[in-house]
Amino acid sequence: MDPATDWDGGTSKFMDAEGSLSSYTKRLFLCGGEMRIIRSAAEMQRFSEGERCRGRRIALVPTMGYFHEGHLNLMRIGRKRGDCLVVSLYVNPAQFAPTEDLDAYPRDFERDQTLAEGVGVDVIFHPDNREMYPEGYQTHVEVEGITNNLCGISRPRFFRGVTTVCTKLFHIVKPHVVIFGKKDFQQYVTIRRMVLDLNMDIEVVGMDTTREPDGLAMSSRNVYLSPDERKSALSLSRSLDLAGELYDSGERDAATILEKVRAWIAGYPHTQIDYAQICDVKTMKDVERIDGWCVLALAVRVGKTRLIDNRLFGEPTEAGGRMFEAGGRE
Amino acid sequence: MDPATDWDGGTSKFMDAEGSLSSYTKRLFLCGGEMRIIRSAAEMQRFSEGERCRGRRIALVPTMGYFHEGHLNLMRIGRKRGDCLVVSLYVNPAQFAPTEDLDAYPRDFERDQTLAEGVGVDVIFHPDNREMYPEGYQTHVEVEGITNNLCGISRPRFFRGVTTVCTKLFHIVKPHVVIFGKKDFQQYVTIRRMVLDLNMDIEVVGMDTTREPDGLAMSSRNVYLSPDERKSALSLSRSLDLAGELYDSGERDAATILEKVRAWIAGYPHTQIDYAQICDVKTMKDVERIDGWCVLALAVRVGKTRLIDNRLFGEPTEAGGRMFEAGGRE
Repeated sequence: MDPATDWDGGTSKFMDAEGSLSSYTKRLFLCGGEMRIIRSAAEMQRFSEGERCRGRRIALVPTMGYFHEGHLNLMRIGRKRGDCLVVSLYVNPAQFAPTEDLDAYPRDFERDQTLAEGVGVDVIFHPDNREMYPEGYQTHVEVEGITNNLCGISRPRFFRGVTTVCTKLFHIVKPHVVIFGKKDFQQYVTIRRMVLDLNMDIEVVGMDTTREPDGLAMSSRNVYLSPDERKSALSLSRSLDLAGELYDSGERDAATILEKVRAWIAGYPHTQIDYAQICDVKTMKDVERIDGWCVLALAVRVGKTRLIDNRLFGEPTEAGGRMFEAGGRE
Repeated sequence: MDPATDWDGGTSKFMDAEGSLSSYTKRLFLCGGEMRIIRSAAEMQRFSEGERCRGRRIALVPTMGYFHEGHLNLMRIGRKRGDCLVVSLYVNPAQFAPTEDLDAYPRDFERDQTLAEGVGVDVIFHPDNREMYPEGYQTHVEVEGITNNLCGISRPRFFRGVTTVCTKLFHIVKPHVVIFGKKDFQQYVTIRRMVLDLNMDIEVVGMDTTREPDGLAMSSRNVYLSPDERKSALSLSRSLDLAGELYDSGERDAATILEKVRAWIAGYPHTQIDYAQICDVKTMKDVERIDGWCVLALAVRVGKTRLIDNRLFGEPTEAGGRMFEAGGRE
């Protein structure tokens, strides 16, 4: 069947307004209908290898579940970028420190299934810990330099856990393209670096942060916030807006901007700054002056909940602005 | 074309004695003739992706070049196991310590080309350091427990360098099957563990050690040996034979066997034992008693040249004897 054939005579459930196949149609005809739940790595690999052999492009959105609109936006991009859209749903213990919220991390698989099906996901890959880290497991993947700052200091096991599980997921799902949110900006840069360094033949797409109407970055951890804390959580996005205004008015000195950002956040009750730093996006090292592509990254405890957010400065506007210069693909 | 068609009417250059396609024929018809030299990772990936899309099975033999009969035997197995045989030839600086023989490591690319072509290699992947580790490179892959003994003690950077470069080569060449020699037994076990732990969808085949007529394990480093040292190099294989006789006569106590092995080696001039240990093949931890599948592993300096060799005890005889029990493929 020619996927371009307009067999129902016009735009509809089957075609979108631009005359492309709708996600419903793509899913129905290219992947065979119902959303599948796959829990075994070997079964997922067989499925993906089959898709690849038939020339289908696989898009992967790696998640820890408890979906919000931010996840769904990543899936919608994945739906456009792939013939077959796989969402992995796995709360990865390797990226939590013993003191962190692994057990408390919110989970609701039934709700997640419904939401994923609603945006046209073909497969949810949902393994358990025994499938991912069987007895005798002893391998890790680590990106060095760029993980030594920011969350790499506050959460020493975090990035190693993320790069290891993503390597596993990439080998299991065999995607052509993976979609990550830029809310976890250091994670996004780290994955790009890993993909480049290890010659993974995968396109990494970064999506802008999805926000609540008042500006709060969406996060599964927002459910932890009390009503009072929810108000204080706005300190992150509001202080980033403030920094944006300073930048737009010509301020380039990092210390000046950060001083005002820190004072702004400290003005809200229940807040405790973990870090507020301005870094070069290629190296994730602190800069004294914003010159080129930089990120202002925030991690703030609001009550007991650790929230992160960030704002980019000087991002290349032309398509093809590259994060890393050296060889290989990005 | 049906690869089983006997179009030239009998065994010949085109068919081997068992009526299978000869390596020459396979290469001619399945991969298109002349051996190719590919130096760019991106070009290798395009080639391999094309092969995979056409349903061809890719076999990879990773090497550091300076081929001897041991390498050629690995390639012959690769030739049988794959429709397309890729040999990577790269002296990986990341697996040499600053004090080791990286610069002196023997190289002869023209000779290697001729030898590879002779056994039906389709592609030599031969990148340079800039292609493999461009500026900004900062990622590594590490297998923990089983690399903490034997060569992991003598050569602290070695296994991390090997697992990292193999991960890169696997992503570049995209093999279905990889062939390793069991002379580097700990390396072979480490690669199996990494492939299993990281869900790499690759079959790992281990080949028995190829030996000179007098028993010396073939190694590119044998060229370093003076005539006198060459005689002392026999201490490794001869002491392994002695250990085999002890085992066959019922001896199971590791200390008893190792004492005799060490004394035997010490009886040769120019020898200095780096290690002589008996380990469980799954954990690479020392055993007191040989019970199940174990390896006697030797590393001996003969003059300035460090040689390794090993002998297995209690290897499962049935096909499908598995090195690791836990999930995933091996």
